[in-house]
Amino acid sequence: MTYPLPENAFPDSEAGARAYALAKELFPICRSITGRGVRETLAIIAREIPELMIHEVPSGIKCFDWTVPPEWSVREAYIENERGQRIVNFKDNNLHLVGYSIAVDRMLSLDELRPHLYSLPGMPDAIPYVTSYYAERWGFCLSHRQLTALEPGNYRVRIDSTLAPGGLTYGEVILPGQSRAEVFLSTYVCHPSLGNNELSGPTVATELVRWIRSLPRRRFTYRVVFIPETIGSITYLSRHLPELKERVIAGFNLTCIGDDRVYSYLPSRNGKTLADRAALHALKHHAADFMRYGFLDRGSDERQYCSPGVDLPVASIMRSKYGSYPEYHTSLDDLSLISPAGLGGGINAIAKAILTVELNRAYRATVLCEPQLGKRGLYPTLNGPGGRHMGRLLTDIFTYCDGEHDLLSIAELLDLPVWELVPAVRQLADAGLIEQEDKV
Amino acid sequence: MTYPLPENAFPDSEAGARAYALAKELFPICRSITGRGVRETLAIIAREIPELMIHEVPSGIKCFDWTVPPEWSVREAYIENERGQRIVNFKDNNLHLVGYSIAVDRMLSLDELRPHLYSLPGMPDAIPYVTSYYAERWGFCLSHRQLTALEPGNYRVRIDSTLAPGGLTYGEVILPGQSRAEVFLSTYVCHPSLGNNELSGPTVATELVRWIRSLPRRRFTYRVVFIPETIGSITYLSRHLPELKERVIAGFNLTCIGDDRVYSYLPSRNGKTLADRAALHALKHHAADFMRYGFLDRGSDERQYCSPGVDLPVASIMRSKYGSYPEYHTSLDDLSLISPAGLGGGINAIAKAILTVELNRAYRATVLCEPQLGKRGLYPTLNGPGGRHMGRLLTDIFTYCDGEHDLLSIAELLDLPVWELVPAVRQLADAGLIEQEDKV
Amino acid sequence: MTYPLPENAFPDSEAGARAYALAKELFPICRSITGRGVRETLAIIAREIPELMIHEVPSGIKCFDWTVPPEWSVREAYIENERGQRIVNFKDNNLHLVGYSIAVDRMLSLDELRPHLYSLPGMPDAIPYVTSYYAERWGFCLSHRQLTALEPGNYRVRIDSTLAPGGLTYGEVILPGQSRAEVFLSTYVCHPSLGNNELSGPTVATELVRWIRSLPRRRFTYRVVFIPETIGSITYLSRHLPELKERVIAGFNLTCIGDDRVYSYLPSRNGKTLADRAALHALKHHAADFMRYGFLDRGSDERQYCSPGVDLPVASIMRSKYGSYPEYHTSLDDLSLISPAGLGGGINAIAKAILTVELNRAYRATVLCEPQLGKRGLYPTLNGPGGRHMGRLLTDIFTYCDGEHDLLSIAELLDLPVWELVPAVRQLADAGLIEQEDKV
Repeated sequence: MTYPLPENAFPDSEAGARAYALAKELFPICRSITGRGVRETLAIIAREIPELMIHEVPSGIKCFDWTVPPEWSVREAYIENERGQRIVNFKDNNLHLVGYSIAVDRMLSLDELRPHLYSLPGMPDAIPYVTSYYAERWGFCLSHRQLTALEPGNYRVRIDSTLAPGGLTYGEVILPGQSRAEVFLSTYVCHPSLGNNELSGPTVATELVRWIRSLPRRRFTYRVVFIPETIGSITYLSRHLPELKERVIAGFNLTCIGDDRVYSYLPSRNGKTLADRAALHALKHHAADFMRYGFLDRGSDERQYCSPGVDLPVASIMRSKYGSYPEYHTSLDDLSLISPAGLGGGINAIAKAILTVELNRAYRATVLCEPQLGKRGLYPTLNGPGGRHMGRLLTDIFTYCDGEHDLLSIAELLDLPVWELVPAVRQLADAGLIEQEDKV
Repeated sequence: MTYPLPENAFPDSEAGARAYALAKELFPICRSITGRGVRETLAIIAREIPELMIHEVPSGIKCFDWTVPPEWSVREAYIENERGQRIVNFKDNNLHLVGYSIAVDRMLSLDELRPHLYSLPGMPDAIPYVTSYYAERWGFCLSHRQLTALEPGNYRVRIDSTLAPGGLTYGEVILPGQSRAEVFLSTYVCHPSLGNNELSGPTVATELVRWIRSLPRRRFTYRVVFIPETIGSITYLSRHLPELKERVIAGFNLTCIGDDRVYSYLPSRNGKTLADRAALHALKHHAADFMRYGFLDRGSDERQYCSPGVDLPVASIMRSKYGSYPEYHTSLDDLSLISPAGLGGGINAIAKAILTVELNRAYRATVLCEPQLGKRGLYPTLNGPGGRHMGRLLTDIFTYCDGEHDLLSIAELLDLPVWELVPAVRQLADAGLIEQEDKV
Repeated sequence: MTYPLPENAFPDSEAGARAYALAKELFPICRSITGRGVRETLAIIAREIPELMIHEVPSGIKCFDWTVPPEWSVREAYIENERGQRIVNFKDNNLHLVGYSIAVDRMLSLDELRPHLYSLPGMPDAIPYVTSYYAERWGFCLSHRQLTALEPGNYRVRIDSTLAPGGLTYGEVILPGQSRAEVFLSTYVCHPSLGNNELSGPTVATELVRWIRSLPRRRFTYRVVFIPETIGSITYLSRHLPELKERVIAGFNLTCIGDDRVYSYLPSRNGKTLADRAALHALKHHAADFMRYGFLDRGSDERQYCSPGVDLPVASIMRSKYGSYPEYHTSLDDLSLISPAGLGGGINAIAKAILTVELNRAYRATVLCEPQLGKRGLYPTLNGPGGRHMGRLLTDIFTYCDGEHDLLSIAELLDLPVWELVPAVRQLADAGLIEQEDKV
């Protein structure tokens, strides 16, 4: 027994490929929590999303317990050996430089240099990703193989960077719906050349915006933000918390959503919000073997969105979760780790969660007892041997239209995706047998 | 350790045999949702239950979304072959005729006849049970063996039936108790010659009425209805809903309760009503290996009693549930499928659920701390080696007499049937150590 | 990762040895529910606890459903054979005499004597412990080996005892804290020479008083009572119920807490009080393989403290529970069954439950979003490869400081003992990032 799906229910089949192409374009840019890399990234995204508004918050502005940091700019950075060879060079891979490194131009012996070098002995070919946003440091990251090959001698270290007043840049899209109630999507643009743990988020978000825009009779308003992680979400919350608390009914943090391995769910702090229910429902029907994490495993912007007193209903649907896969925070998390299929799966999983929120409402029966569906052509008029039929689904839905069960809870009872109930709900509503409890 | 049971606690041991004898008498009658068969059936039941009131609701009356249908009468119906042999004859088995078949008298080729014939290829010896109450049709049911033996040629089909204004007939019994609060039993009389899925219900109900009438100090009022399924319960609800909603504290739908196989439980839609708790308690202590169904497996009048806005606390205790056994809705569901023991077991299971409701009330301790049972002869005065004693049961019950735990929840905590607590409760009450919270 | 424990968090390592020494001193005294033995016992405890107040309630006073019994005094009691040998003598072991035996001085044949003799055929070397407080009787307890060795003939039975107006004696300690809210400890002093099921309770209680007295900044007031079981707790409740109901936030009944076998938990009747939560938390982290009993397994003064209308939050942490070990209520439950280590383990388990109550409070974040711990030196400023750190614990705790989760529930979420959270909570509070919800 199959049911037709609602019109435009899912993103088109090219969404994953478009997301991957965008990731390829964005990959080389050296992003950090502030600066030119973020602006370049947002400019490219704005080409895909004309509605994107770009905001700047000046360095030094207080945001709750934090202050917007100075802006970091790098012109060049390298380590040169005695023979004048630049053996570690920011130009080759922007991961080589510790994020927010201050300027330096000195000759150092290998022993003096060593405390400024970071590598991963257990992954000898990977360059680690290291940052020091709020304490002034400089340092280089390199593969352990490179590190152990360094010969005694003197090295010239040059970092031509500045930390100067500037701004924190973020992007924001508002797609109005019939209701002022909002679905909130948040993703980050603050890591340099990284794949799953950076570019999967904004590229999936970009495709979701494209799809949401195409939804006919969009019920909710959508707010999508492209921000630097942590300081960006804190900054955004400090400027928008009252309206977010009033309007957001469900939100999803988009991170690590582009590889081809598992799907993952990480709850909101509350754990039982509409976002959690929708995420679990979507994943159950999208990839039943998904991983379930707890809020103690958190690590992205849900740390802010779910903090005490903020308490937004924000859950995460991911593919391989940050911190759980070996390539995480290394140069191996590159374009080879994500794929069109991986990104496409992520886009669809989030879309199903969004669809669940869009479709979810409570209905109330308008007649007492079962309606006579047969006279409306909705139920077989012959009662004899035969299999399950659409009429049975109609009565199964109808019997829970008590104004208290919402459609999501009915779908859970029936163990069917909520979107597969739509044709039946429409038939019942068109026949005047049920009516929706809420206006929008 | 055993305790005496309350007086007349259970139906007598002949109840199952009497129910089976009544089923035998009722078996040949051709019942449908209206008409002479229902009236004949109720007349025989009235002989056993003098309190039975018989009501008629005229055809054409609106009942919620439904209309009472015209009355169906059949004089004869057969298929005759070219040699004048009546090869399928309503007189042989009333299942041969599709219920509510309209009149026809024609000669047809085998090919023309075929669309009007119903059989079960997977059960070649069984005649299926088929009806078409609300769409005008005619048809015959026959065994698949019979169907495949039909030779090409012409057949005379004759159905001498009428669909004419008349009435929907049902029976109702009210047995008043000390309280106006009611226990509600519903069963149906609308299938032709079928055993478990027809006659088990009214015959078990008849014996339950006999037993309820004999209960001394009956606490609740009992309302028992014998109705056609679906249209009958809808009709009954349309005339009695406000009083039912006000008075009914627990109800049981009696169906498929006469074979010797499993016991089954199907919840109310709410799932946690007193009827559900009593049914589960009774079955646990009557036949712990009973089958548990969900409300999505519903198929009888609980569909109406538990519909949104009706919401009566009605659960089902069955033996082999409708739709779950191979003979269901075929000629094999006959008198050989039910038995005196099967019906007797069903009678006792329902009686235990009713007893649970009758006995269930909250008590409140009248003294603080444990009472000194020893001085009342209710507890050993020597504290030394020895086994479990009645005094321990008294203190176990007493400690939960907090006005919040009802006796059913105490019985569940003690893992004892509620009826086995009665002697101890009586001792505590007689000693003035507990008092009941409610008046009746 | 380890955290320093709060100052004086646990009883000192000699507590078990001191408790055992005290048990040895108290062992020979013949205690019963009234009389000289109780007074001698309380006098020795008062030497250890100068704050101990000793109260007497006169015989004949009504306490709820009970009456304080007359005081029982024994001078001597024996059975003498025809050769003048005292073959059973109260002087040898005070268990030989049935508790509250009335005076007798007669010659009896063996057959006349037999109904007054109690033994345990299944434990032929053990003298059972038998009492008859509220019905006048006399009797002797002896090993089954002794009983079966009795020769036919005449025996002189002499019990020089009196039942005369006197009083029920109990001890009470109040250790005031910052709050008038109380933690309540109850133990009993009413069994003769018995070990686990008598002396473990008051000796563990004595050591707990010593430890509680030493606690700096004690938050709650502690009330500790040494009473005869059943009649003593009933008497105490009859005099103090309103203040106990108003003030006690958690209580523990101390019984059978000195052997070296398992740990056991028995809930309050409610099962979810702070005492239950604290007991379960303490045991999980003290001895994860503890036994869980239900309230139906109750048998000590929780029978009174948790009776309907009394409803104090009193749970039990025990070692081998009364009634569950073979030596229970026999002469084999002597000083060899308990040990310094066994008592010390019991002291620590209760101390951990008390500590849990002391430390448990709700906190509320004073800033929105995560605080910037790095600038306070509480979080690494370098974000790179590295293991779990203290900063993570700070944010894990902070994120649940919503004024609703108490510290105990946060500890349960983190699966850490509540006392291991203290240093982190203190850091957060000292930094002004959280504040406590309640005044004391």
